[in-house]
Parts: sequence; structure tokens; C-alpha cells
Amino acid sequence: MIIVPEKEIAGLLTRADAFDAVEKVFASMSKGSAYNFPVIREAIGYEDALYGFKGGFDKAGMALGLKAGGYWPNNLEKHGHINHQSTVFLFDPDTGMVKAMVGGNLLTALRTAAASSVSIKHLARKDAKVMGMVGAGHQATFQLRAALEQRDFEKVIGWNYHPEMLPNIEKVANEAGVPFEAVPLEGLAEADVVISITSTFAPTIMADHISLGTHIACMGTDTKGKQEVEASLLARATVFTDEVAQSISIGEAQHAVAIGLIEQSDVHELGAVINGTHPGRTSADEITLFDGTGVGLQDLAVASSIVDLAVEKGIATIVDF
Amino acid sequence: MIIVPEKEIAGLLTRADAFDAVEKVFASMSKGSAYNFPVIREAIGYEDALYGFKGGFDKAGMALGLKAGGYWPNNLEKHGHINHQSTVFLFDPDTGMVKAMVGGNLLTALRTAAASSVSIKHLARKDAKVMGMVGAGHQATFQLRAALEQRDFEKVIGWNYHPEMLPNIEKVANEAGVPFEAVPLEGLAEADVVISITSTFAPTIMADHISLGTHIACMGTDTKGKQEVEASLLARATVFTDEVAQSISIGEAQHAVAIGLIEQSDVHELGAVINGTHPGRTSADEITLFDGTGVGLQDLAVASSIVDLAVEKGIATIVDF
Repeated sequence: MIIVPEKEIAGLLTRADAFDAVEKVFASMSKGSAYNFPVIREAIGYEDALYGFKGGFDKAGMALGLKAGGYWPNNLEKHGHINHQSTVFLFDPDTGMVKAMVGGNLLTALRTAAASSVSIKHLARKDAKVMGMVGAGHQATFQLRAALEQRDFEKVIGWNYHPEMLPNIEKVANEAGVPFEAVPLEGLAEADVVISITSTFAPTIMADHISLGTHIACMGTDTKGKQEVEASLLARATVFTDEVAQSISIGEAQHAVAIGLIEQSDVHELGAVINGTHPGRTSADEITLFDGTGVGLQDLAVASSIVDLAVEKGIATIVDF
Repeated sequence: MIIVPEKEIAGLLTRADAFDAVEKVFASMSKGSAYNFPVIREAIGYEDALYGFKGGFDKAGMALGLKAGGYWPNNLEKHGHINHQSTVFLFDPDTGMVKAMVGGNLLTALRTAAASSVSIKHLARKDAKVMGMVGAGHQATFQLRAALEQRDFEKVIGWNYHPEMLPNIEKVANEAGVPFEAVPLEGLAEADVVISITSTFAPTIMADHISLGTHIACMGTDTKGKQEVEASLLARATVFTDEVAQSISIGEAQHAVAIGLIEQSDVHELGAVINGTHPGRTSADEITLFDGTGVGLQDLAVASSIVDLAVEKGIATIVDF
């Protein structure tokens, strides 16, 4: 079997590779040739850790397996490791035998960034000029870096609950040759594209903060109770997601559906837009919203690409198993 | 991380090691210091395969992880591999980082055999002399081999739907120096201990086939609909299991509970007997029944033992991950 350790991922996987893998698997999900298994997520009662499995099977991409791992909040302080820890295991769909093991930490950051980037490609206005960021943590830098490749942005504006973290994303903007400006939440009205990447249980972005014609990608909500944007924004927008079942239960759409502002049938698969079976944005005034909940198939797709690249470049560790 | 490939397991894990690991984890489950996660089991729509994950956490044994794999019915014919394929992944409960990967095929056979063997140790009469087998497939040989170590058996009797397979278990009996005799199902009345290890959806063993004072371990039912023994036998017996939730939903007790012959509270944990919090068998006339459904924690416990043994003997492959 093939092993690609965490430390090799950075040198192997480009943002373009992650983008292609995620775009393909969203398309495959929407065609019905790929599906995610129920998610296992357990508070194990030790080290305050959350641990679980996200699995799936993509018949088109022949990717079968799971990402296992979770969140260990004391890791950094106690052990000097990052708090999110995960590993992807791929299996051979023809035999059920384990095929590869791939470090899942950087992979997760890149696949999450790729998801909002895919949504921008397919849903934002072609003439988008101002990129808005809500959130400025470690993951926000990945989201912004990938987003800036999708349109000719002329400015990045950003807001964060802790303004002292804004230099994280300012740096990314400047590296891409784009000026950065800190704004109050009301300033988001200027943005043509917004990415929200926070971990909150009350909405930060109100419906009135978002102008007509904007595309907003909500990337932070992956649990019951979490919420980044006011529910009424979803009623005002055309809503897309990676997986409808997750969107309405643990994603950003959970609240708008719960209070009856929208129905499940108002939430569309981004994959359908990629496949051309949903028109996506139909006017320059439309607000499009992508609810990126994060699915196991993204991890499997990106891990498969990494394995292919590692084999191609002779970097893979081959172990007799 | 540590890798122990399938081919090394046979040389590492003794039946005694598997027995100890399974006995300890049953005890830990009953004390509330170990629990199994919900099981994922998916018909993936390819190669008629069933694939899934059985995970759990044993805080006492510090074992965290999962067994992943499943059943590929065409494996042997198409690829020359056995149809059941699985791999165990262990994680470090302190950090969430992957710790070890262990071949899960022989391990599964040994842990399943250990479970009925643990039940015999704690529930069969001390003076048991006749061992009865229903089922004579590959797994039956493991069950019998482990069972024969628990009492001074003087005879093995056996029945199988395909009688031409009985030599499989006759061989095991003879290797242990015990004579074997093929019997009709009615002949099971002579047995002091019975192991049933079949994969059927209608009961093979009727309540009247089992004499007073017998211990019977039902090891074949792990899915909704499967059934090895007549439901009324469970009403007549004191019923034990590895995990109550599985026993009444996918185990042998599902039928007796469904038709109201017994209640959930009539199904006891074998771990409670090991811990001394349930008296177990209380008379020589009592029928005891162990419903072995198979839990992820058994796999994790046995895999942990294998990893310790592999490190001790210098056999483990260490991979930088």
C-alpha cells in the first residue's frame, strides 16, 4: 500500500489540483455517481476531543474510504501539534483492500478552500472586483488565496471579530498583488464576493450587509447550532451547497429551513451548476449563496489526487501490507 | 506510525492474547469506560460489496480507532483474495494522530472466536463434557479451537447444513485430541455447550434442541433479519451479550424482543459477569445464551495487543508519518 505522510503534501498538491478534484467530485455527487456515508462524530469524553469518520464512495472517480480524526483542543499547548488532526484512508473498490493512507491536515485546508473557490468560479459575477472576507484565522488565508485566482479582484476588504488578526489575510492579498482594507461589517456592501469563515453560534453577517449581485460562500458552519449569516439572507439569495442533506441539518441552511423561510427544495447542489443541469446565477442582481458544509468525498477526491501525484513523482512510501 | 501487515498476524497473536484482550474490553464496556460508536455499513452499489466502519474508544485500555472494510463476495473468484477484507486503524487518544495500522482479517476471526470462548469461561458449567457445533465453515474452526481450551471436553458433536463440510471441524477436534461425531439437530440435546456460527435468516436451532444446563453462544447474527435460534429459546434462557444495543437491534435477541418474548432489560452484558456485578449462571439447570454480535472495541483491543507484540518482537514496520 501507498503512504503519503503529512509533511509531503505541501510539495505535492497545488491549489489547482485541489480545485479540479473538488469540482469533479461535486459534479459526480450531483450525477448520483458519488455519495457520502452518514458522518460519525463523537465527543469521546477524553481531552475534550471530538473524533469521527467521514466516508463515501465515488464510483466515477473510483474513490472509496474515509477521513478519520477530529479536534483535540489541547494539542498545541500540550504537545505542540495542531488541534485539528486527520488522516485519509483509501480502499480499493474492486477488492475492499486498503490502498493508501494520506496525511489529512493540509489536505483539509486545501479542499475547504477549493470548495469556496469552485463556488466562485460557477456563481460569482464575471466582473467581480471586490473580495470580502469575514474571518481572518489560519483557514481564512487558504480560502482567500484560492478565491483570488477566480476573478480579477482589485481589492480585498475584511472584517474579523479580533481585528488584530486581519494582517493574516492582508498578507495573502498583498502577496497576490491586491490591496487590502479593513472594514466594518456594513462595509461588506461594497463586496462582489464574500467568504465567511468563522466558527460562531450567532449570525455575524446580516442580510442588509450584502448587496444585490453578490456571491457569498459560507464556509464555517458544520454543526447543529452554528450560524454565520442572518437566516433571512438565505430567503433573499439563491442557495447552493455541496450536499443538501448536510446543508439543511448541520450547515448554514439549517436555520432558514427550521424557521420556514426556505424549504429543502430551495437548496441546490453546486454540482448541478457544474453539470449544467441547474442554470446557476441568472442575473447580475441575484444574490447567490454557497453553503459549504464539507463532505468526506472532497477528502477522498483530493487524497486520490495526492496519491497519484506521489506515485508519479516517486515520493510515495510503498509498504508491504 | 506502526504498521503490522496481515501476513505477520498469525505469528504474533496467540489465542490466549486474543482471549485476554476481548475479556478485558468486555469488562471495560460494562464499567462504562469503553463504548462503541454507531456502526456505518453501506451497500456501495459496486461489486455487491458491503463496506463500513466500526469504531470506538476504550478509555481504560486507551484504544481509539476503527475497523474499516467489509464483504466483497466476488473477491475469491475474481482476485484470489478472501471475501471479508478489513483493516484496523488505531489513533493516539492524547493527540488524535494516527498511531498504527493492523491487518484485520485473521484478527477478526480470532476476536470472534475469543468472544464465544470468553462466554464459555464465564457461563458454561464447569463440568461441561460435550461440545456442540452448528456450522462448519472457516470461522467455525476458529470458534471450536478456542472453545476447546475452556473446559475438559470429551466429545465434539456437530451439524452443518452442508454435511460435507463437517470434516473442517472434525479435524480441529481431533487435533485437540477430542473425538468428533456428526449428529442431527436433535442430537444437540447431548451438548453441554453449543456454538452456533451460521449465516441464516431462519432459525436452525429450535428451543427443544437445547437441554437444561446448556450454554449456547450464538455468533452468526450481526444484521437485521438474520436468525440462528428459535426466539422462544431466548425466553427460556438467561441472555447475555457483548453489547445490549446491538443485541436487540441486529443480534440474535432482535426477534425475541420484537415479538415481546423478552425485553431489553432481560439482556445482560457479559462484561457484568466478568466484573462480578452480574452473578452469571446461578444453577446447573439454567440455560445461558450468549449473543455475540461483534463490536468495534473487540477489534481495537486485539489490534492494540498485536501492536504491542509486534513492537516487543521487533516485527513492526515503523513509517514516518
